Amino acid sequence: MPATPDPAALHRRLAEFAAFGATPEGGIDRPEATEANGQARDHFRAWLEAAGFAVRVDAVGNMFGLLELAGPEAPWLLTGSHLDSQPKGGRLDGTYGVLASTVAAESVRSALLREGAAPRANLAVVSWTNEEGARFQPSVLGSSTYAGIHAPGWALERRDGRGISVGEALAAIGYRGNDPPAPKPFAYVELHVECGPLLEQAGRTLGVIDRWWGARKLELVYQGEPSHTGPTPMARRRDALYAAAALMAGLRAMADAAPDDSLRTSVGRLEVEPNSPNVVPARVTLFIELRSPFPDVLERAGAELMELAQASAERARVGWIVRRDELRRPGRFDAGLQRLAATVAAGLGHPAMSLDTIAAHDAVPLATICPSLVVVTPSKGGLCHTPLEDTDPADLERGLQLLTGMLDRLVRQGPEALS
Amino acid sequence: MPATPDPAALHRRLAEFAAFGATPEGGIDRPEATEANGQARDHFRAWLEAAGFAVRVDAVGNMFGLLELAGPEAPWLLTGSHLDSQPKGGRLDGTYGVLASTVAAESVRSALLREGAAPRANLAVVSWTNEEGARFQPSVLGSSTYAGIHAPGWALERRDGRGISVGEALAAIGYRGNDPPAPKPFAYVELHVECGPLLEQAGRTLGVIDRWWGARKLELVYQGEPSHTGPTPMARRRDALYAAAALMAGLRAMADAAPDDSLRTSVGRLEVEPNSPNVVPARVTLFIELRSPFPDVLERAGAELMELAQASAERARVGWIVRRDELRRPGRFDAGLQRLAATVAAGLGHPAMSLDTIAAHDAVPLATICPSLVVVTPSKGGLCHTPLEDTDPADLERGLQLLTGMLDRLVRQGPEALS
Repeated sequence: MPATPDPAALHRRLAEFAAFGATPEGGIDRPEATEANGQARDHFRAWLEAAGFAVRVDAVGNMFGLLELAGPEAPWLLTGSHLDSQPKGGRLDGTYGVLASTVAAESVRSALLREGAAPRANLAVVSWTNEEGARFQPSVLGSSTYAGIHAPGWALERRDGRGISVGEALAAIGYRGNDPPAPKPFAYVELHVECGPLLEQAGRTLGVIDRWWGARKLELVYQGEPSHTGPTPMARRRDALYAAAALMAGLRAMADAAPDDSLRTSVGRLEVEPNSPNVVPARVTLFIELRSPFPDVLERAGAELMELAQASAERARVGWIVRRDELRRPGRFDAGLQRLAATVAAGLGHPAMSLDTIAAHDAVPLATICPSLVVVTPSKGGLCHTPLEDTDPADLERGLQLLTGMLDRLVRQGPEALS
Repeated sequence: MPATPDPAALHRRLAEFAAFGATPEGGIDRPEATEANGQARDHFRAWLEAAGFAVRVDAVGNMFGLLELAGPEAPWLLTGSHLDSQPKGGRLDGTYGVLASTVAAESVRSALLREGAAPRANLAVVSWTNEEGARFQPSVLGSSTYAGIHAPGWALERRDGRGISVGEALAAIGYRGNDPPAPKPFAYVELHVECGPLLEQAGRTLGVIDRWWGARKLELVYQGEPSHTGPTPMARRRDALYAAAALMAGLRAMADAAPDDSLRTSVGRLEVEPNSPNVVPARVTLFIELRSPFPDVLERAGAELMELAQASAERARVGWIVRRDELRRPGRFDAGLQRLAATVAAGLGHPAMSLDTIAAHDAVPLATICPSLVVVTPSKGGLCHTPLEDTDPADLERGLQLLTGMLDRLVRQGPEALS
């Protein structure tokens, strides 16, 4: 008999973890390695230890809970998400996946013990460091390090806006670990809220992510010259914020002009120096994102951005450099895991809808080392990265059912479940 | 024999005061009531006391040094400027005027004592609180309070970006005073660097400000909605920064289209919330300035700005409000003081050039209660509000000569010097 999901445990855990970094608006403020993030980590570790998981904290603060269900030689299945949040984030994003994974893992273990079954795989849960990319850039930092995309030393040296490094911040909350990470898994499964409106619009409850959008993330700096906003004639100004304004207006026009919503553009963060009302801005840093499911659209948009940056610089008589430029190529999640998810969802009476993901997920770097998948439940109004983020409790339970069913099959059958 | 200027004392004092808040670029970082500002104030007070001035610190932190040269019934002449600076400001702006005024006052007193002359007026020097408007808005706060434009209680309640009030900040450095301010003067004279390129371009050394430009200063807030920069379709975004970008681009176009440089526009400060790379900005506050010498141009620009704000809000699907809206009408400085300055400058062999001022000066609020004037020396490259701000030492000495000569005549002759 397959494992029985435990929705009551999920809701109880969600309520517990919503307290760490709780904001008056009902969301959470829990960026990576803040005090509130440390509290959530402490609570997660205590839970894992009490529940008999072997806990590991690796060099970049990723937290693993291992259940050796099938013996030291058996392959490992990995599941989880992240406990960090945006500064004004929601209580579900990331947290839902970590908690549901752990609740589901406990259910699977109980079922196996009850039956005295001999599973083919071990099971580990994970909470990844700095998925959000809010306090530290880049995003999906811990999972990318686990996947070998970044060296741990490089990851630890990323710095926040105040100059504090990931390593320093993790040490301050006691999560710069010494343990080896979990063994390389044969598959990775992540449950998440959709962070988009498509399931809700379609009236569906469960989604399986087929494709992830590509993203290009840049930090572009305009360097002008400070001067007095009064006496300095317009023609003599070197106004870095004017250059940024021209770029931002043009960047939005690029997305609005792209057919079929095939390109999304944004500037979410902007730093202005000296940022005084009567000083012409001398230096502006823009955090730019371009996103598309199509490699050629992304490439063309990148070229257009460079032209736009240059034209805006000339209009404002300022210089510019690109300080950071990261490309995540679009791709597809594992077909075998998608089939498994569809089968389990159909068995629940809630056939899964196939979707794109446009946000980054830890499953994307994981896809470079093993079959990987994200399954999702609806986000009310499509909202995410806001305290208003919400999902119907019944939908949260459906997600837990899907995840529990998938883990159950993958642990019992091992890699064969994917063939 | 008129007072003898003391250029060596001026240069020595400039070097001393440049140390308070000194930055590696050679400028100063000394916004109102910061620790560095407190150090400069302490040094100024010690100088005044040692030199025999009667020191007063009023309720909003304005510092006065009084020399009762002509007896308690005689009218008072006031001269000075400000010791606060922009966060990355220059060592001359404001400071030059305070130091030159005090050096000149000492010279005038010495000359009178030497001659045993009976002057018609008393003389006070002043350093005004928060001229810059960098840390606290509005600018020219201390002088406007002295002139009765703001109530002291209102001025003390202005808050910086971190929520600290003027009153709290002044108390923290020991400059929330209890003394009455200096008596209302019969005239106010301020020496300043030009903060513009006109003297240099004309190859002239001394300027007399005839007219001040009007300014309208607004804080405008766009309120959108936070959402994820990836999954949220462009058409569903309520991007407050996009609205701000459209407004800033249009605001610059307004100034560029105005004939004969008759309108200057700027956004010097911008606050973005939550300011995270992958969150659509929910709230942006713009600190906008419009400046013109012509009341009708300023009025028309204000109306255009409101239309632009509305159109930009509609494009970005966000709301907006104006949180602060201050108008300084254009005006003219006292004709009698201008004539006196021209006479003294001509006597020095450096005929004064008549100029506009576009920046605010403490002399503008003072003009509402007494004859008031600003005289200026060149700014290299027209630069101001930057560590690159500079003036030739010989030009600084000429400014001191002009100020000393004016104070000498005004103190000896009293109000009659203006007729």
